[in-house]
Amino acid sequence: MNLILLFEADFSAPATGAAGGRVCLEGRRASYIASVHRAQPGDRLQVGLVGGRIGEGEVVSVAGDRVELDVQLDREPPAPLPLTLVLALPRPLVLKRVLIAATSLGCKRIYLIQSRRVERSFWNSKVLRGDALDEPLILGLEQAVDTVMPRVELRTRFKPFVEDELPGLIAGGQAFVAHPEADAPCPRDVKEPTTLVVGPEGGFVPYEIEKLEAAGCRGVGLGERILRVETALAVLLARMF
Amino acid sequence: MNLILLFEADFSAPATGAAGGRVCLEGRRASYIASVHRAQPGDRLQVGLVGGRIGEGEVVSVAGDRVELDVQLDREPPAPLPLTLVLALPRPLVLKRVLIAATSLGCKRIYLIQSRRVERSFWNSKVLRGDALDEPLILGLEQAVDTVMPRVELRTRFKPFVEDELPGLIAGGQAFVAHPEADAPCPRDVKEPTTLVVGPEGGFVPYEIEKLEAAGCRGVGLGERILRVETALAVLLARMF
Repeated sequence: MNLILLFEADFSAPATGAAGGRVCLEGRRASYIASVHRAQPGDRLQVGLVGGRIGEGEVVSVAGDRVELDVQLDREPPAPLPLTLVLALPRPLVLKRVLIAATSLGCKRIYLIQSRRVERSFWNSKVLRGDALDEPLILGLEQAVDTVMPRVELRTRFKPFVEDELPGLIAGGQAFVAHPEADAPCPRDVKEPTTLVVGPEGGFVPYEIEKLEAAGCRGVGLGERILRVETALAVLLARMF
Repeated sequence: MNLILLFEADFSAPATGAAGGRVCLEGRRASYIASVHRAQPGDRLQVGLVGGRIGEGEVVSVAGDRVELDVQLDREPPAPLPLTLVLALPRPLVLKRVLIAATSLGCKRIYLIQSRRVERSFWNSKVLRGDALDEPLILGLEQAVDTVMPRVELRTRFKPFVEDELPGLIAGGQAFVAHPEADAPCPRDVKEPTTLVVGPEGGFVPYEIEKLEAAGCRGVGLGERILRVETALAVLLARMF
């Protein structure tokens, strides 16, 4: 937790925390401050308001599972990537790691989609239910010292998404689909808005690649090695941006 | 498991398996072939001999927890990275993930070292004990379709390693230390032998950075975002190679 992520509801005064104020934390964040940071009154911690600015919180009190901070928010969060990430839904165990990694790398718009090699049961994952989906996103922001939550959209049907929605997402930018058989190397130093589509373990089936190419995606490869989704994602984004 | 990694001892005939032969598998690999691949006699699976060539294994029989394959090894594994990776020992939970990622990315020489922010207790991790250390390396090779095991060295004292051993490792190539405060961006498209030093969570302390710079390492940064070690490693290697 390189940043303590704050929410409007944490602020007691003033009621809106855009520039700072007094916050009172309980639960996970308070335990972390007390037991990992071992914070004492007067210590200063890096904090940020969700969707807003970053700054410092001075510890006012630490009592049991309750921590009070005086917060000053004085700088903008890091720039987001100019990216829309479209990801075949990974296995539940992998999904959480991938969302943390994608968020920490600066992805702000993530579509999780069905594909032939995605087991239907993956859509029942607890990670996708209600507020649970926020958890890996918050962990990613806390890791990377960022405040802007990614927007995650779920699309449980491949064809309507790729035919009807994807062309609109790509419009005005460029789009790539990463798959092992593609010959073209990953582009470097991309500046314009980009859509990146990443397949499931085992890759997209040929029909899906055709559909994605018809929607405007160019195939890019990563060389001989087959990487875990979260590793491949870090490699692709590091090369592209 | 994109490749079934074979060992000399798996071969029944001929006794040396450099070009192929008959192998008999039990345990983890056999269960995987039977229950995940759901392999039947005649199916062909990607295999490789540890330290040797890659090829195909044709399933001869699947019986309970025992699988026989007829193996032909006909091509070389992917090229290794021209890299020596020096890594402050991560927490046990993180260590395994980092070793899998580093191996899958093609690292062949890894030094795990002590540093001020590495808790001494991390050296007692089960992952470091005897053959246990091979497990994440094997998983990394199976993931990336590679056969060459990385050599992992443990160095429990920072100063003797950096003063006496590191300059010899760097000799004839270039060396970098990744840390958040460095201004220089990560170099791209490196061709020569390279040593990359990556710090612990929280980074190296200033004294350690001085020592590493004195040994010939140049600081490189990764931008504003603080990444998990395994994500940072993938980003660094993707940019460098």
